[in-house]
Amino acid sequence: MKFQRPNNASISHHLKILTRRPHVAGSQANAEAASYVVSVFTSSNIPSHIASYEVPLTYPLSRSLFLTNPPPQPPTIFTLHQETYEGDPYADVAHEVVPTFHAYAKSATVAAPVCYVNYGRVEDYLTIRENGVNVSGTVVLARHGKIYRGDIVKNAYDAGAVGVVIYSDRKDYGGGREGGWFPDEKWLPPSGVQVGTVYGGLGDPTTPGWASSGGECERLNRDEVEKGGEVPLIPSLPVSAADGEKIMRSVGGPVAQDDWQGSKDAPVYRLGPGPGILNLSYMEVITTIQNVIGVIEGAEEPERFVILGNHRDAWTFGAVDPNSGTAALLEIAQRLRKLQERGWKPRRTILLCSWDAEEYGLIGSTEWVEENREILASRAVAYLNADCAVGGPGFSARATPQLDELIKIATQQVKDPDNSSQSIYESWTSSGSSTLLGRLGGGGSDYASFLQHVGIPAADIAFGGGYPVYHSLYDDFVWMEKFGDPMFQRHVAAASVWGLVALWLADEEILPFDYLSYAKELQLSVKNLEDEISNKDISLSPIFKSIKELEKAAIKINNQRMEIEASKGWITREKDQLKVRELNDRLMMAERAFTDKDGLFGMSWYKHLIYGPSKHNDYGSQSFPGIEDAVKMAENLRSAESWHRVQHEVWRVSRVIKHASLVLVGQPT
Amino acid sequence: MKFQRPNNASISHHLKILTRRPHVAGSQANAEAASYVVSVFTSSNIPSHIASYEVPLTYPLSRSLFLTNPPPQPPTIFTLHQETYEGDPYADVAHEVVPTFHAYAKSATVAAPVCYVNYGRVEDYLTIRENGVNVSGTVVLARHGKIYRGDIVKNAYDAGAVGVVIYSDRKDYGGGREGGWFPDEKWLPPSGVQVGTVYGGLGDPTTPGWASSGGECERLNRDEVEKGGEVPLIPSLPVSAADGEKIMRSVGGPVAQDDWQGSKDAPVYRLGPGPGILNLSYMEVITTIQNVIGVIEGAEEPERFVILGNHRDAWTFGAVDPNSGTAALLEIAQRLRKLQERGWKPRRTILLCSWDAEEYGLIGSTEWVEENREILASRAVAYLNADCAVGGPGFSARATPQLDELIKIATQQVKDPDNSSQSIYESWTSSGSSTLLGRLGGGGSDYASFLQHVGIPAADIAFGGGYPVYHSLYDDFVWMEKFGDPMFQRHVAAASVWGLVALWLADEEILPFDYLSYAKELQLSVKNLEDEISNKDISLSPIFKSIKELEKAAIKINNQRMEIEASKGWITREKDQLKVRELNDRLMMAERAFTDKDGLFGMSWYKHLIYGPSKHNDYGSQSFPGIEDAVKMAENLRSAESWHRVQHEVWRVSRVIKHASLVLVGQPT
Repeated sequence: MKFQRPNNASISHHLKILTRRPHVAGSQANAEAASYVVSVFTSSNIPSHIASYEVPLTYPLSRSLFLTNPPPQPPTIFTLHQETYEGDPYADVAHEVVPTFHAYAKSATVAAPVCYVNYGRVEDYLTIRENGVNVSGTVVLARHGKIYRGDIVKNAYDAGAVGVVIYSDRKDYGGGREGGWFPDEKWLPPSGVQVGTVYGGLGDPTTPGWASSGGECERLNRDEVEKGGEVPLIPSLPVSAADGEKIMRSVGGPVAQDDWQGSKDAPVYRLGPGPGILNLSYMEVITTIQNVIGVIEGAEEPERFVILGNHRDAWTFGAVDPNSGTAALLEIAQRLRKLQERGWKPRRTILLCSWDAEEYGLIGSTEWVEENREILASRAVAYLNADCAVGGPGFSARATPQLDELIKIATQQVKDPDNSSQSIYESWTSSGSSTLLGRLGGGGSDYASFLQHVGIPAADIAFGGGYPVYHSLYDDFVWMEKFGDPMFQRHVAAASVWGLVALWLADEEILPFDYLSYAKELQLSVKNLEDEISNKDISLSPIFKSIKELEKAAIKINNQRMEIEASKGWITREKDQLKVRELNDRLMMAERAFTDKDGLFGMSWYKHLIYGPSKHNDYGSQSFPGIEDAVKMAENLRSAESWHRVQHEVWRVSRVIKHASLVLVGQPT
Repeated sequence: MKFQRPNNASISHHLKILTRRPHVAGSQANAEAASYVVSVFTSSNIPSHIASYEVPLTYPLSRSLFLTNPPPQPPTIFTLHQETYEGDPYADVAHEVVPTFHAYAKSATVAAPVCYVNYGRVEDYLTIRENGVNVSGTVVLARHGKIYRGDIVKNAYDAGAVGVVIYSDRKDYGGGREGGWFPDEKWLPPSGVQVGTVYGGLGDPTTPGWASSGGECERLNRDEVEKGGEVPLIPSLPVSAADGEKIMRSVGGPVAQDDWQGSKDAPVYRLGPGPGILNLSYMEVITTIQNVIGVIEGAEEPERFVILGNHRDAWTFGAVDPNSGTAALLEIAQRLRKLQERGWKPRRTILLCSWDAEEYGLIGSTEWVEENREILASRAVAYLNADCAVGGPGFSARATPQLDELIKIATQQVKDPDNSSQSIYESWTSSGSSTLLGRLGGGGSDYASFLQHVGIPAADIAFGGGYPVYHSLYDDFVWMEKFGDPMFQRHVAAASVWGLVALWLADEEILPFDYLSYAKELQLSVKNLEDEISNKDISLSPIFKSIKELEKAAIKINNQRMEIEASKGWITREKDQLKVRELNDRLMMAERAFTDKDGLFGMSWYKHLIYGPSKHNDYGSQSFPGIEDAVKMAENLRSAESWHRVQHEVWRVSRVIKHASLVLVGQPT
């Protein structure tokens, strides 16, 4: 049964409707977007329900920022307003956009001199110190871009700052660059602001590890949440390129080094400290969020779930982030209806999930996974995510490695939307990157709880990488039509790849998981690690050995798959079903075995020891985060004990890999 | 297909062979016992293999004890020797018995005055203090009986003692009581000593949470093990009733209260401190232990495991502890061969496990479970344990509550070996105890890692409770034939009940688990808890609510079972198999949902939040150990914060019960 090509007119229609109003999590407009998703599911003959959670979301009750200048100059007052443009079709609803702010920022009022700290990384603070500038007690001015904004605030706090202002430098995002900006060009206008969360955790901060289900549930109080270390303890605010430059002009002190400077017509950036007053406060409310879950029940194996997910809530209109993905999801729903009309039913159950409150910290998906953890752990086959499905040209995918082949095959069957003479796969492989597929070590979207908490094979696909109007007022349908995907062919391609992978996972009698890819990928990762710590007295042989065992087990199960496939016809059908199930269960459960109950050191919610966030690299997605963090710590502490802990982390990784190979084999020792 | 009645001649033959020599874990004699088990499995047409682990076991290299008396009396020297008797058929191998000692005791030499501390419980130390006696710096003399000997040592350490001597008071064990002792009576002779472990953990202390598998594996060093808090930090030694009395005569100070005194012809017990010197040292070696695993592969569902287990290693001859259970296990193997000869094959795989090094701290079973954790978590249906299967008359069983009904039905089908006019069930229910089945909250035998670490439904059965020659030289075949089970009919009955429960679990198409029993049992437990903390500001309504949900889910799945059973015949057979599997998986996995990754507070290896050891009651097997411990702590600390933690533990329990009900339902929210 063939998955019909998605339709660009239909996708763009979905996107237009989803993005007609700003729809931040918890808003009426987002509830209306949920209704739209439900209506498309219903008309696609897909039963759906709402899974609601009561969670605390913060909204800016009031915030203000002004800069005291040396007398006799008057203070500079910032309006913190993103401007609409002449002819903006969304000008009449722009006031519904949540005012620029940081979700889960600390409510407080501070007044202190300003220091410029570049991207606010740990190494930037070292540079500052080398320049003789003390940021303690200051408000730091950082620019967006290299690390997660929550870490910008965290690093500032660790350095002793009392407040943080983060701006979008026009060198990175446009922000008034020569040659223009949105609506004429794709670049961020001078008044554009990147809103976002500064929360360091996942899911409702008051219910760590369990669901904020309706009715009564245990909740941490504010003190306990602050002690948990995942919410910032100093206030912060995002500002525009224009406001950033204004503040920058006021900063005195040493001139910053070349690579800390802005674009060539920008003012000279200095380190400070210079005068400045930040003043802001927030309101926090417990509100209801709504995940929409569409269910196409499997005909043969209703208790095995292939899950597609995308979030629905947006900081503003969300044309790229996230509703390009939502539009693709709805298009898939409609394609599946066509299949159903022709008599198809999936072998396994397909869940289509529209998550809420992702922007605040993956809240909707995390609460749902925490609530359904035990069922998902024994029944979920894979989770396939799309967040910003389309922000420009160029396909990319990240996945757990047993899915690599499947994704490659899917991209071979879909034309490149920007070059119809070849497949996505051909364009992708000719892009020159040595590693085709990325990995899902970092946080950043709703796959996190599925993979990193429960150990469910996962993938995330997208067209286009970063885009300049990210999280600003200008991420709207006009931007998408003009710059992101004028013909909506990239949307079509994203829906095609996503849908094909899902269909195969739902319909193939034997799960198309290849653990040889996993073994190879682990081998590469451990080789990299070996280079990194070659001069230390750390033995990686436990990992090398366990990978060998995984490889053997993968070859064995691949052979068993072939045997079963060859034997069809003479085995009685009945036994066949349980035999296939037995094989599939090993393929499904092997990924779970990479999780460890104790989780990552100091981040015990993260149970996966191969892919997870590193404390030292939140945007990173390298392997073995526990080892990486232990190495970084040992390099700082230089104690025998800290290197001993590196070796311990090596052993832990080797043990989960061994567990995975035992699961693939399926027999107790 | 009927499970034939086990045979008493055959069982007694097994026991005789198994117990012909002392066979402590790690000894050649115990390897020979393993060979015997393998040979019986082989002749029963049951393939088996050895699962070996390298673990550190301690043996007494040398130990000595003497008492300095006030001059001019010479010191009293203790020979620490258990005497054989005239005509003892085992006299020639008695020298092979490991010298009396405590496994994992601290190697050290101490010399200090003696204090008598009754059973060495926390409350006993309070009494001592009220009597104005300071035990700090002394060697305490405690008697065996009320609490786990490891806790006697731990409490002594906490009270400041520098060493511990534990004796078997003749009031409790015989030890020279009027009327005689073994071989004339069942009682412990005056020189009899209760050997045992004083280790507080489970499994190899150098590999907490992972398997000590052959070849290379990570190991904690001695310092790290001691920091772990599970091995004693002061030396200890068990002594006989006679030696205990000798020491007691030397103790001065206040006369102990009445209920601390011995039998009426014993000397007057005083509290001390009085003079005494304890001198001992141990050798520790890494040795190989051997679990024997027999496998009868399931014909329909080879990947579902029903596991029967019993340990093989004994402190001495082990006629009661544990080889009465081993003999029953071997008998079951032979009964199953008869069934196989008549064409029977189990639907599911049956594993027959003979564990090693249980006496040292459940080492063999724990290492095996840690190694196979991921497979067992997704494939094990139930674990059925027997340790001291027969030590006297009177059936008892402990189980997770979904097995209650099954065990009752089995006992209705087997005659009471001590009253052939009625069933075991009839005798059992007429014994007057209000609660028929016990629970598996305490440690104490090999079910611990299956249930308390992984969440596998479990049971433990036995005839007879405590018996006086426990862990002494006299636990031999002669004692069994004379006192424990002269006709071996209790062995037959134990094998019958154990075998029937196993067969039903292996063969019933739908697993005979009843979660309504679980809900009822939880309801009782929470009512008890309510009485206990009624005057505190703790809300138990989250638990009551979650039990309601469990009850609803249990009723629902029981109805589904009936539907499936009713629909046989018209549903196609093929779908039927997967449908039955789906239902069975919910029944199997619901128990797992009672586990929580964080485990019990301060004892994180224990993942089960309903049944597990309480820090304050190691022999106890009550429910909700985490809540119980939090309550005890709050009653001591009396702080708002400590009561807040009680509420937190209540929430945690309510959440795992809710997870279990969601698993029974099987649908994500």
